[in-house]
Amino acid sequence: MRKTSFVLALLLAGQLTVLGQQTETVGKSPWGSDDEIGSLNLMSNYTRFEVLSQIKSGKTYDLSVDYFVGMPSFHSLGDPGYQYWLTHTPNGTAVDNPNGLGKAMNRKVSYTGDAISMYTHMGTHIDALNHFGLNGKIWNGFTPEKHLGDKGWKKTGAETIPPIIARGVMIDVKSSKGIFPENYRITVNDLQDALKKQRLKLQPGDFVVMRTGQAEFYEDANHYLDNYPGISLDAVKWLIEEQGTMLLGADNLSFEAFPPEREDNWVPVHTYLLAEKGVMFIEQMYLEELAKDEVYEFAFIAASLKLKGASGSPLRPLAIPIKSE
Amino acid sequence: MRKTSFVLALLLAGQLTVLGQQTETVGKSPWGSDDEIGSLNLMSNYTRFEVLSQIKSGKTYDLSVDYFVGMPSFHSLGDPGYQYWLTHTPNGTAVDNPNGLGKAMNRKVSYTGDAISMYTHMGTHIDALNHFGLNGKIWNGFTPEKHLGDKGWKKTGAETIPPIIARGVMIDVKSSKGIFPENYRITVNDLQDALKKQRLKLQPGDFVVMRTGQAEFYEDANHYLDNYPGISLDAVKWLIEEQGTMLLGADNLSFEAFPPEREDNWVPVHTYLLAEKGVMFIEQMYLEELAKDEVYEFAFIAASLKLKGASGSPLRPLAIPIKSE
Amino acid sequence: MRKTSFVLALLLAGQLTVLGQQTETVGKSPWGSDDEIGSLNLMSNYTRFEVLSQIKSGKTYDLSVDYFVGMPSFHSLGDPGYQYWLTHTPNGTAVDNPNGLGKAMNRKVSYTGDAISMYTHMGTHIDALNHFGLNGKIWNGFTPEKHLGDKGWKKTGAETIPPIIARGVMIDVKSSKGIFPENYRITVNDLQDALKKQRLKLQPGDFVVMRTGQAEFYEDANHYLDNYPGISLDAVKWLIEEQGTMLLGADNLSFEAFPPEREDNWVPVHTYLLAEKGVMFIEQMYLEELAKDEVYEFAFIAASLKLKGASGSPLRPLAIPIKSE
Amino acid sequence: MRKTSFVLALLLAGQLTVLGQQTETVGKSPWGSDDEIGSLNLMSNYTRFEVLSQIKSGKTYDLSVDYFVGMPSFHSLGDPGYQYWLTHTPNGTAVDNPNGLGKAMNRKVSYTGDAISMYTHMGTHIDALNHFGLNGKIWNGFTPEKHLGDKGWKKTGAETIPPIIARGVMIDVKSSKGIFPENYRITVNDLQDALKKQRLKLQPGDFVVMRTGQAEFYEDANHYLDNYPGISLDAVKWLIEEQGTMLLGADNLSFEAFPPEREDNWVPVHTYLLAEKGVMFIEQMYLEELAKDEVYEFAFIAASLKLKGASGSPLRPLAIPIKSE
Repeated sequence: MRKTSFVLALLLAGQLTVLGQQTETVGKSPWGSDDEIGSLNLMSNYTRFEVLSQIKSGKTYDLSVDYFVGMPSFHSLGDPGYQYWLTHTPNGTAVDNPNGLGKAMNRKVSYTGDAISMYTHMGTHIDALNHFGLNGKIWNGFTPEKHLGDKGWKKTGAETIPPIIARGVMIDVKSSKGIFPENYRITVNDLQDALKKQRLKLQPGDFVVMRTGQAEFYEDANHYLDNYPGISLDAVKWLIEEQGTMLLGADNLSFEAFPPEREDNWVPVHTYLLAEKGVMFIEQMYLEELAKDEVYEFAFIAASLKLKGASGSPLRPLAIPIKSE
Repeated sequence: MRKTSFVLALLLAGQLTVLGQQTETVGKSPWGSDDEIGSLNLMSNYTRFEVLSQIKSGKTYDLSVDYFVGMPSFHSLGDPGYQYWLTHTPNGTAVDNPNGLGKAMNRKVSYTGDAISMYTHMGTHIDALNHFGLNGKIWNGFTPEKHLGDKGWKKTGAETIPPIIARGVMIDVKSSKGIFPENYRITVNDLQDALKKQRLKLQPGDFVVMRTGQAEFYEDANHYLDNYPGISLDAVKWLIEEQGTMLLGADNLSFEAFPPEREDNWVPVHTYLLAEKGVMFIEQMYLEELAKDEVYEFAFIAASLKLKGASGSPLRPLAIPIKSE
Repeated sequence: MRKTSFVLALLLAGQLTVLGQQTETVGKSPWGSDDEIGSLNLMSNYTRFEVLSQIKSGKTYDLSVDYFVGMPSFHSLGDPGYQYWLTHTPNGTAVDNPNGLGKAMNRKVSYTGDAISMYTHMGTHIDALNHFGLNGKIWNGFTPEKHLGDKGWKKTGAETIPPIIARGVMIDVKSSKGIFPENYRITVNDLQDALKKQRLKLQPGDFVVMRTGQAEFYEDANHYLDNYPGISLDAVKWLIEEQGTMLLGADNLSFEAFPPEREDNWVPVHTYLLAEKGVMFIEQMYLEELAKDEVYEFAFIAASLKLKGASGSPLRPLAIPIKSE
Repeated sequence: MRKTSFVLALLLAGQLTVLGQQTETVGKSPWGSDDEIGSLNLMSNYTRFEVLSQIKSGKTYDLSVDYFVGMPSFHSLGDPGYQYWLTHTPNGTAVDNPNGLGKAMNRKVSYTGDAISMYTHMGTHIDALNHFGLNGKIWNGFTPEKHLGDKGWKKTGAETIPPIIARGVMIDVKSSKGIFPENYRITVNDLQDALKKQRLKLQPGDFVVMRTGQAEFYEDANHYLDNYPGISLDAVKWLIEEQGTMLLGADNLSFEAFPPEREDNWVPVHTYLLAEKGVMFIEQMYLEELAKDEVYEFAFIAASLKLKGASGSPLRPLAIPIKSE
């Protein structure tokens, strides 16, 4: 019953169109001309409760990396890396006396404050639908001329992304396949093989996360950024169009691998998911603990910061094991 | 059984000492000289599962405010407000050609990227234990000389804060008490009255959040920052020392009110909780939806960003209604 | 001889058109369709040497304010204020060991490093011609569609502003007129009266700076920003169209006063100068020492930072007294 | 007469001590216990006028590089690179309406605003005396405990650096010596050979700038940062202790070369100049035009931004040819 209604919704959404389409154009949302969240419309109180009620333990897996100066960053196009700085320190406060209360007070009350700055696509984060569009439009036809101000998009900004509670499935391609060639593109077969070994089937509405093992190198930015594997366009189309996946994730920098598969598009997986299909995804996740414990099925709970107008947002997702159906 | 073991842990932790102590000094953790998370040690797989298994619906309450340029900020001591800026836009990418792929490609693939900067104590956020110390030390005796680098604290930084899953109780003092005088300090009686009306009892290990109603004004920073009510020192001591509360929260700027209750301490509630007791708290929460639906008891799920060394971190907490015991 | 050629150049530049024109439209540069610096084209080796050869002393006046956290800022539209932070400190370096050379080395070599961020129109700074345009174009017809990338303008950016060496004249309206009414607009008569008292005549090609006395309050941002006097549209037209002034300056926040003189333009002096006439100006100068010493005529030497693509740039101008002609 | 008095001042300053000293310790200023500018005390109205009166042309050489995203930076210790971003654009202002004046007004008045952030030691900049100290003290014995607040040093901050007007001499080691081996350290002989070819003698009080030719690669950060030549400790001691140079400069990243000459000090030239001798220097200058025109002697005019408390500051220095004595 439940799966049937999902599939219907997806069909309406045009998610299950014929594999191999070649024209690239922004999708029109089946959830209406005001829709800003695409496939996340598939969530409901019902779907959330279904997964929450299957939780079988209090063991919680933290799927986020740390934020630190020097962490990996998509910096090749000039984006700012992560910066952290102290705005107040115990000794500095005593020297500066910023509150005017004097040295004795500021020696007693030892104040530490700090600030950060960062590109929004750093660390474990979700891509909003406006991150990549096609031919001057984003998902559902919104345009920069009308909807892009100096403080970001008036439509599909990160503040519109709802908290996510869904069944999560990790496909541990790393464990299944071993070492990847440089810049390897993970295929449909790779996903199917891993799922078979894990004895798991995907369901419409799932959060599906692919493990490449790359997060093992997160502390060493050069290594992490170096020729990492990513998903192929076919594999991502299989997930969306045949499996009805609601949300995707991976543990590498950019989900897809470089160089791109299409000559006429430098990020074809990004534009396919965000602009054509209205499907978001989470990058730079930390999956090593899940893999070690062979936890492949879980309640996935994640809530990104509501950065108004933003093209992405950091979050710290959790996985809690559930009973298999 | 469960409550007894909590109380024992708290007694060991020195949390239930005699009310009214006057000396202010950093606490020594009962969880050992390496402890960096204080009362959050009270969480376990057992306590997390207990609350998760009581969830009775898929309705999810989002307890976070939005982040936007001009949002309220503790700026009186010079801390930077929230900034957002675009690093890539569809037209700008076509003009700049940052990837070297030329105008046709950059017109087709419409790229939006952005960056943020902010004081770490903005929007809905948790204070780490290093945020305020006493006499040159922080919780558990860590010192700036040994543990404070230019990229933050080596101890008790925000990256050490675990994901939080606990029973949450909102004390809706606003609904119970109506309009507050300027800079009002909420008393033990105020909390008790509200709880009585809500027919709820606190339990050791709870996340307790106090609603002042201030979040209603969040979009108007001047109003939000103006003479808001906060918790009194007595009330916070009652919560920690008599009720065994694990984690606190509120919907105002700084949890406590200004001017401070003690002449010799400009943030006595902060130093009491963070430095003396090892108890963290979440500020600037959004509680209006919970209040409207009269949801006072819930599974509280929150995971702050792991900002290495930081004195605080943003998060987007969720509340999901649970069955009353 | 020299004056004649200046006037000719200005006539060609359309600078001496009929006073009181009402249509507002971007100017077309008489220096060609590639011109990016407008009236600064009037400078030459000859004009520079003329003023340098008149220098009569080594006494140097520093015409810049300090940059500090909390300094005045045009923040009403959300622009970021000045921020300063330490990236390395002697103790922090010893704790962090960022160079991997160990505690002994980092205790010996006591490193201090720091960083800043700021809106480009803070402190003593020059406005580039792209700062304000009219009807979607800037000076000389350049457009955002073709020339505005995500890293600023490809045309008229601050990096194109040449070092400035010119005869400087301070018109001390403050000394001449005394106290100003709130938001007072300085008139042609005010300028003429002050010049008469100073027994000075303007010459084509001058840098003309107007003293309002506002810089006295620079350390107190609220006072500095409060209802300050500025120049009127008539006065600025008199300077450009009748006196042939090459570059302007003042000691207040925004040169012009608010509210604006035209209902259909919120910064009519800015658009008149930058977009219509191609004349830049320097704001937030410090003129108190010049005034105290009654130095009204000087060699003006200023070189703004070459911030690529920027709409403004900080500089620290100098004045050195010259022999009167 | 003039030279004699310089030498006397330098002797008093301890600048002419025996070559080859090995103990490294912060200097005590001969200009008193409050002195914050070291050798720049050698400037006076007399010295400034002397050089200004020798100016022989209006041709002005701009000795600064541009600031742009991706420019070279000393980033190996985590310092933030240069960032530039737009805060207002013509279209964005129309979409956002930040001033509340509506679309018609914001379409008419085409607003561009922008902001920057940067490590203070980027582009052409001067190092303040607090940038490097020895054993927990900086020049003249100031200490972090007393003088280093969270907003920088209370002593010797960049705001204390006076405008600089001095005789400038470029030593074109690049032209004299040709290609340098990797990480080459320029010797006393190299300087003397070049000066001989240039038929120039140094004078006490000079600004002396060394050309390595590295600025030719400034647009290509990787090349610029790669194994560049720098000055040797002997050469810098010769300049300060035997020639009485007041201020130094070069066109490479860090004046000195890496790896360092002393095993017990990773920046021995920096600490020698700043901490021991109270001599500042300017890095990352652009000298290619001077070299092309063979201008070796000039009036040097430079005024760094008065960044309060900062360890360095950007500036755009000028050179104007003077008559040889």
